Amino acid sequence: MRIGAAAGSVAMYQAMTRLGHAAGTDFRGPPALTGTRKGSTVLVLGAGLAGMLAAYELRKAGYTVRILEYQNRSGGRNFTLRGGDTLAELGGAVQHVQFARGNYINPGPWRIPYHHQAILHYCKQFGVALEPFIEVNHNSLLHSSTTFGGVPQRYRDYMSDFTGYTAELLGKAIRQDKLDQPIGPDEKRDLLAAMHGWGLLDKNGNYVSSVSASFRRGFDKPLGGGPDGAPIPSKPLPRSDIMKSGLWEWLSFNMNYEMQTTMFQPVGGMDMIGKGFAKQVGDLVTHNVKVTKIHQDAGGVTVSFEDMGKNNAVSEAKADWCVCTIPLSVLSQIDIQVNPAMKAAIGAVPYASSVKVGLEFKRRFWEQDEQIYGGISFTDQPISQISYPSTGYFSDGRSVLLGGYMFGNAAYAFAGMTPEERVQAALDQGSKLHKQYRDEFLNGVGVAWSRMPWTLGCCGTWNEESRRTHYKALTEIDNRIVLAGEHASYVGCWQEGALLSSLSAITRLHQRAIGAA
Amino acid sequence: MRIGAAAGSVAMYQAMTRLGHAAGTDFRGPPALTGTRKGSTVLVLGAGLAGMLAAYELRKAGYTVRILEYQNRSGGRNFTLRGGDTLAELGGAVQHVQFARGNYINPGPWRIPYHHQAILHYCKQFGVALEPFIEVNHNSLLHSSTTFGGVPQRYRDYMSDFTGYTAELLGKAIRQDKLDQPIGPDEKRDLLAAMHGWGLLDKNGNYVSSVSASFRRGFDKPLGGGPDGAPIPSKPLPRSDIMKSGLWEWLSFNMNYEMQTTMFQPVGGMDMIGKGFAKQVGDLVTHNVKVTKIHQDAGGVTVSFEDMGKNNAVSEAKADWCVCTIPLSVLSQIDIQVNPAMKAAIGAVPYASSVKVGLEFKRRFWEQDEQIYGGISFTDQPISQISYPSTGYFSDGRSVLLGGYMFGNAAYAFAGMTPEERVQAALDQGSKLHKQYRDEFLNGVGVAWSRMPWTLGCCGTWNEESRRTHYKALTEIDNRIVLAGEHASYVGCWQEGALLSSLSAITRLHQRAIGAA
Repeated sequence: MRIGAAAGSVAMYQAMTRLGHAAGTDFRGPPALTGTRKGSTVLVLGAGLAGMLAAYELRKAGYTVRILEYQNRSGGRNFTLRGGDTLAELGGAVQHVQFARGNYINPGPWRIPYHHQAILHYCKQFGVALEPFIEVNHNSLLHSSTTFGGVPQRYRDYMSDFTGYTAELLGKAIRQDKLDQPIGPDEKRDLLAAMHGWGLLDKNGNYVSSVSASFRRGFDKPLGGGPDGAPIPSKPLPRSDIMKSGLWEWLSFNMNYEMQTTMFQPVGGMDMIGKGFAKQVGDLVTHNVKVTKIHQDAGGVTVSFEDMGKNNAVSEAKADWCVCTIPLSVLSQIDIQVNPAMKAAIGAVPYASSVKVGLEFKRRFWEQDEQIYGGISFTDQPISQISYPSTGYFSDGRSVLLGGYMFGNAAYAFAGMTPEERVQAALDQGSKLHKQYRDEFLNGVGVAWSRMPWTLGCCGTWNEESRRTHYKALTEIDNRIVLAGEHASYVGCWQEGALLSSLSAITRLHQRAIGAA
Repeated sequence: MRIGAAAGSVAMYQAMTRLGHAAGTDFRGPPALTGTRKGSTVLVLGAGLAGMLAAYELRKAGYTVRILEYQNRSGGRNFTLRGGDTLAELGGAVQHVQFARGNYINPGPWRIPYHHQAILHYCKQFGVALEPFIEVNHNSLLHSSTTFGGVPQRYRDYMSDFTGYTAELLGKAIRQDKLDQPIGPDEKRDLLAAMHGWGLLDKNGNYVSSVSASFRRGFDKPLGGGPDGAPIPSKPLPRSDIMKSGLWEWLSFNMNYEMQTTMFQPVGGMDMIGKGFAKQVGDLVTHNVKVTKIHQDAGGVTVSFEDMGKNNAVSEAKADWCVCTIPLSVLSQIDIQVNPAMKAAIGAVPYASSVKVGLEFKRRFWEQDEQIYGGISFTDQPISQISYPSTGYFSDGRSVLLGGYMFGNAAYAFAGMTPEERVQAALDQGSKLHKQYRDEFLNGVGVAWSRMPWTLGCCGTWNEESRRTHYKALTEIDNRIVLAGEHASYVGCWQEGALLSSLSAITRLHQRAIGAA
């Protein structure tokens, strides 16, 4: 910033550009692990993406690898619910998903940003087909219960009016030389041009009903053909309510690096990725085993586990090294023999709760009645979001949308309900945005991550303080054990974090194993 | 606006919402044409989308229809160039397209907005599969030759900084009560909250390098996993250059109703739509005939044409009615017997020139090196845009991008070049955005619409004056002849306009034919 403010030369810019800032996450290609000692063995705990990637790359490097997994499937939080699936949760509730064939919901990860280059790399390598995930939809709805009389507004209307009023206010302040700092005549001219063009202001600097503004927010009578084709412009919403509603929060949200275009999703459900990984390392996985103890000494690592398919018979597995990807929420309850700092770190990261509700309807009324194809509507109700499927556009028949996706207090409230109550609450709240909800509803499923016994929450939530105190100790190798997973990364709560953490962990472990570190 | 400014009640809002403004164009479903007189005949001139839709609906209504078409294919401006195709232009140049199998460029229409409900309707009806077209890509480039030392900037960087500085300036003016109008304490609080949240300002109201701003514009060192996972924030570009560059024009452009998400394109090329229509009415089309005269009297319409496949032998066709979809640029040179007002209108609408350049490269370097998946980079050079394919993401091998898309003076300049020169100019200019251009280039094609003999320009360009003077006369039926096409609509230069115009024309013609109007 100081450089930028001080200069303006070509050289400076070129320097900035050469420094560049990277487009992606910190992925530099798959690791090249060479020189593995013959007979080296690794135990990987957890067959989520972090664990399976560790196993894949370590086996490739010459290690003998075994994965222990609590569930009866691989993939971990990467999973997809389809018709016929059953979901049991803590508290005893069991849901039987009734979606039509081909319909699904991704309860965990559901979208992949363009800069998550590690997961994009492995999707390609493992043959997982991707399609665009639509995040922003200008025809979706923004809903504030307390503003605009509770009536949902179109994203395009709100965006246009927020932009227009902001430009109008700033344009007038500039014109009257009322900024807090003097600006030169050139910058004044440039700023005024920007506010007029970007804000679609009229020649007096006002944002008003006009053809040009309606070419952004839409017309009251749309454009047509033949003699009656002329449109009628629409009218802006009142400025005070535009600002009061706080709906700019969603414009801001969608500018976030992690929500920018182009995002992707696997064709057919997010678990195509988990299945792609499992195809590579499925032969290494022992399912249905519950790790109870992770000990180490100079000779190796010993993991005790109960085989849930065999009356919880206790077994032991031994290896030279251990990559533990068990979520900290669960790991903190396991007897693990690591140094006190790592032990403290394991207990220091609370897990976020999150709830997703999938709702199946008789037809895609959001497309057929409202021309909403993919994307998300936002509301200040607990459900927070309604996300329309970014696949199968224009198709007839039953369709599933994401009827709620919440964190924090709303998630705890929904997790406290029965699954049926979650679905009903999502229907009640969603009806405020779509009047078709009740008539078209067929069935639903509500997934509360805090009730999933194998993860007890959806992901680790670091803050500045815990990062400073515990992150280093959590991620550094303790003798023969290294932790991996999204919780051991700065890309928390994303699959990318799990992969980057895993690559970092195995690269360092390998260096230690061959005596190079 | 007056209503909005005067009130704020729930009732007012609900009234506004009930009035609503329509999401789509003025499409109300396919026409229900009943009561057709037995033996009624129609001649349709032109087998573009307007002509084929007219033929399809009129045959369904009971008319006997014949289409006369100048070219040796149906579809008109809806077409796609693939490897093996040949394109001849006025002046004699012939291009042989060398793209690899599966690669293509759409020289004419290439994207469909969500609110173009007529074309979306017929795509579904005729089984044309659609996929998302990516318009906005936050990782694409914005390029001003005269600012930032000529170095292209990432869309996300520019967007973030433009937003941040705008919010900072307005926030400070608000804080110091320097707006041109008094605002109450509530609105002041709301406005300040908006500027801080939307602009990602620090607690002093400044837009500076920060973690939160970097979560919008990207980090200098990206987020990673393991001990070294911490990111390093990036630094904003200087405010004066953000404003001076004028690149906000593209942010504004992409907010336009016609560029908003979700857009679509046919899977496999835009001509899948033309082919979908041709499948319905192909049996009605006589290709390779040049209409020279369109006369009418009380008994019917007589069209003279030369059969270009038979040494230009002159023939006549007769019908009760005529739907003429010939572009005005061509029609104005044909002997057509219509009233003076329509005749004047036919001559009053100039046709825009437009040029598109398709470039094939050895590989998708924009994806592999720069993580740009679909979307458009913008530049102030004549090429104006570089659009990356919204299909086949992540695939290996040769790929085609749109290396230039221009209107106005730039288009005339490019149309004046040989096809080879167009391609070279697009390469020169594109190299300013992508250094890989020269190394990876294979072949290209440059389509100048002003040199297409069958349309002599890309579409009609109305202005307020010509609309007022001529639009009514152009679109109203003259005895037995009605005109249709994008030029006879308010959705000019879009396929939707051609369809809406056609539906309007045949609906009115049918009313007249059955004696109801």
